Amino acid sequence: MFYKSKQIILAAAISFISVTSQAQSFQPDSTVIRQLFREALTRGKSYENLRYLCTQIGPRLSGSEGAAKAVTYTKQLMEGYGFDRIYLQEVMVPHWERGEKETAMVKSAKGKQAVPICALGGSVGTGKKGIKAQVVEVHSFEELKQLGRDKVQGKVVFFNRPMNPAYTEAFLAYRDAVNQRSSGAAEAAKLGAVGAIVRSMNLALDDYPHTGSTRYEEGAPKIPAAAISTNGAEWLSSQLKADPKLDFYFKMTPQTLSDAPSHNVIGEIKGTEHPEEIIVVGGHLDSWDLAQGAHDDGTGCMQAIEVLRLMKTLNIKPKRTIRAIMYMNEENGLRGGQHYAELALANKEKHIAAVESDAGGFTPRGFDIEATPEKINLISRWKSLLAPYGLHHFGAGHGGSDIGPLKNDNIALVGFRPDSQRYFEHHHAATDTFDRVNKRELELGGASMAALIYLIDKYGL
Amino acid sequence: MFYKSKQIILAAAISFISVTSQAQSFQPDSTVIRQLFREALTRGKSYENLRYLCTQIGPRLSGSEGAAKAVTYTKQLMEGYGFDRIYLQEVMVPHWERGEKETAMVKSAKGKQAVPICALGGSVGTGKKGIKAQVVEVHSFEELKQLGRDKVQGKVVFFNRPMNPAYTEAFLAYRDAVNQRSSGAAEAAKLGAVGAIVRSMNLALDDYPHTGSTRYEEGAPKIPAAAISTNGAEWLSSQLKADPKLDFYFKMTPQTLSDAPSHNVIGEIKGTEHPEEIIVVGGHLDSWDLAQGAHDDGTGCMQAIEVLRLMKTLNIKPKRTIRAIMYMNEENGLRGGQHYAELALANKEKHIAAVESDAGGFTPRGFDIEATPEKINLISRWKSLLAPYGLHHFGAGHGGSDIGPLKNDNIALVGFRPDSQRYFEHHHAATDTFDRVNKRELELGGASMAALIYLIDKYGL
Repeated sequence: MFYKSKQIILAAAISFISVTSQAQSFQPDSTVIRQLFREALTRGKSYENLRYLCTQIGPRLSGSEGAAKAVTYTKQLMEGYGFDRIYLQEVMVPHWERGEKETAMVKSAKGKQAVPICALGGSVGTGKKGIKAQVVEVHSFEELKQLGRDKVQGKVVFFNRPMNPAYTEAFLAYRDAVNQRSSGAAEAAKLGAVGAIVRSMNLALDDYPHTGSTRYEEGAPKIPAAAISTNGAEWLSSQLKADPKLDFYFKMTPQTLSDAPSHNVIGEIKGTEHPEEIIVVGGHLDSWDLAQGAHDDGTGCMQAIEVLRLMKTLNIKPKRTIRAIMYMNEENGLRGGQHYAELALANKEKHIAAVESDAGGFTPRGFDIEATPEKINLISRWKSLLAPYGLHHFGAGHGGSDIGPLKNDNIALVGFRPDSQRYFEHHHAATDTFDRVNKRELELGGASMAALIYLIDKYGL
Repeated sequence: MFYKSKQIILAAAISFISVTSQAQSFQPDSTVIRQLFREALTRGKSYENLRYLCTQIGPRLSGSEGAAKAVTYTKQLMEGYGFDRIYLQEVMVPHWERGEKETAMVKSAKGKQAVPICALGGSVGTGKKGIKAQVVEVHSFEELKQLGRDKVQGKVVFFNRPMNPAYTEAFLAYRDAVNQRSSGAAEAAKLGAVGAIVRSMNLALDDYPHTGSTRYEEGAPKIPAAAISTNGAEWLSSQLKADPKLDFYFKMTPQTLSDAPSHNVIGEIKGTEHPEEIIVVGGHLDSWDLAQGAHDDGTGCMQAIEVLRLMKTLNIKPKRTIRAIMYMNEENGLRGGQHYAELALANKEKHIAAVESDAGGFTPRGFDIEATPEKINLISRWKSLLAPYGLHHFGAGHGGSDIGPLKNDNIALVGFRPDSQRYFEHHHAATDTFDRVNKRELELGGASMAALIYLIDKYGL
């Protein structure tokens, strides 16, 4: 595009207001919000902080060394910014390890072919000899039940219902497909299957298997469960059409160890008028083990810290206490979020809002709000102040997994919603790396949450 | 993110309506629009078509073999889709060639260091021996003029004003910086400079120089002009602080050849009621020579073709004639767009709207409209139909370079506006390649334009 400046008619050129020492209470909201975005985009720290978390620490599944390092790192980071109080909350977390790199092989009339798989989180292993069995392909639990024990017993069940690309919102496609991963192994086991292979939760066709939690049912048999890449799933399905009796072999050696001690990491700026009222902003510090956990959810953590840093740097003195929380163990237990809520209840803390960023560090679109209709309306009235920054979506929706346990009628749970188109290419896969994060998109997300929290603090809910 | 489906409160789950043979005139607009998006996302062709254009044809600067191949390819593509009429418009275009790969070397007290540069489009060469001179760094034309001939004569002028990251809309940052590239050499030449080096138009810091047109003034001296990567610009500036008298050497051998014949490529679906009224959708087929011209503007061309394919596939019979145009020579001459408009005038064609996609194949945000306030209002009233697909921005703005020559009070020029955050990392640089395009983002863009054109056709302006 060759831009002819003389032809441009600009709807809303954003002029520059320099940051002054003037207290923000005398400034219009639009000015403060502009300062927040300007600071994030010109002197933001979230991108370089994320670089360190991703490239120097990397994977940080609950109970791992990476998770422990991430706790130390984020604590020190917040101490360096001089927030009013930084502390850890100890919490016991599940400790699952992947073991050796998984292998899988298809043996058909045509010969042998390796396919890319990875164990689902929480899966049991296959034993050192692996498992070999015929495959039965299904697309839903209904189809599985119709097949019945006769056709499933002794087989590997291959769950191959793709995420539906017709949704414009990618999370809806995930919602409709993810039961295969979370419950497929449990359902297959009930009918005597010896293993479950699940098509990766990915809208793109590529060679990366995507992990994520699977859950067994109490008292029912536990069978090994793996994800196969989307290309692998397409290929396996075509091979099954040609040779329905082909053999599938796979070997995985994951282990569930004893629960391990870990921590939520918390930093706060104390409120000047109502320090007992708390507004939370957070992401989860743990990640799956296959990659750097960049979009899931290093970005959310670094944005949460940036929200407090932006307020402190701009000398915004909130009336209420603003707390950044790096929750531990969202991916395979939610222990951090649950423990935080339990302590909040025990200590009679009053939370008025909790904001979570756990949908990737992409360009901001708006907020999903989980609260009473009255609170949703209160938040939505700020749309005109935030729309100039691309924040158009304000509506009822899911707040976030980590903040979910805080739910009651007196709190607004707010899910930050960035654009969703690219998220599932990287989600829980080896490609969730720092280089997939765009600096400006990340920074805009932090500023978006800071602006919303500034308004919630100033006007209450 | 671990998604708990039971917790989800979805504002607007989009249900699936299967495409039927029922004429669209009996269907509500929302249903037709949903069908357009569904078809684009589930059976869209733009991504694979773009793959071919980028990876099998590649760079296609006006007058090049690649440009000629792209003309043939897009013509055949539209013939394959069976549009009602496909034809070429011959147009003579400038023919500039880069020559050998450019070299640049900084020689300071510390030694020699190569830096990454590329000739700006249209630049003259340095001669085979290259040019060696001291450097004077400036950040504006005002600063250059204040230095005056005494300090500029015989020097290389280094234009180093960064794009301003404080803008949330990246095109505004481009608008404020691009005069350095388009007119820097001409301004420096007036004061006796022997060369111009311009900081690349890029919001990110990296090692890729970004080309783009530079213009000389009639009758004034022409000096060689090159872009330097943003990292190179930062480094050169730091070196100049340490050693203001360092030598800069560069060598480039571009040539301007005789104008060459080329073509606009046009396909159309004939209107059923008012075939004489025309709605245009297009992008530009030429690209800079350093990369594949994926986002600039292969995406726009493939989306324009997709708009017609979507209508034909869904059996939408427009009242008016819908025309897809691949304009030639947007980057360094605009001859295609000018010629199209001249012929339209000569043939007394009646254009009611022209839509252009030339801001990348990113996730859709909305439309900038260049038209009378009445027409802007008419288009904006469809916002509620399009907002569910992420199209929130409807306002006065720049339509597009190629469609600009069509401007008059009876036409609405509409610029498709995708998210701008990533565009300038790739714009005119070697990184503007197919792998930087996301399939779903691209497809959403084509569907967005198809939906708008469907409404313009149905209701008129």
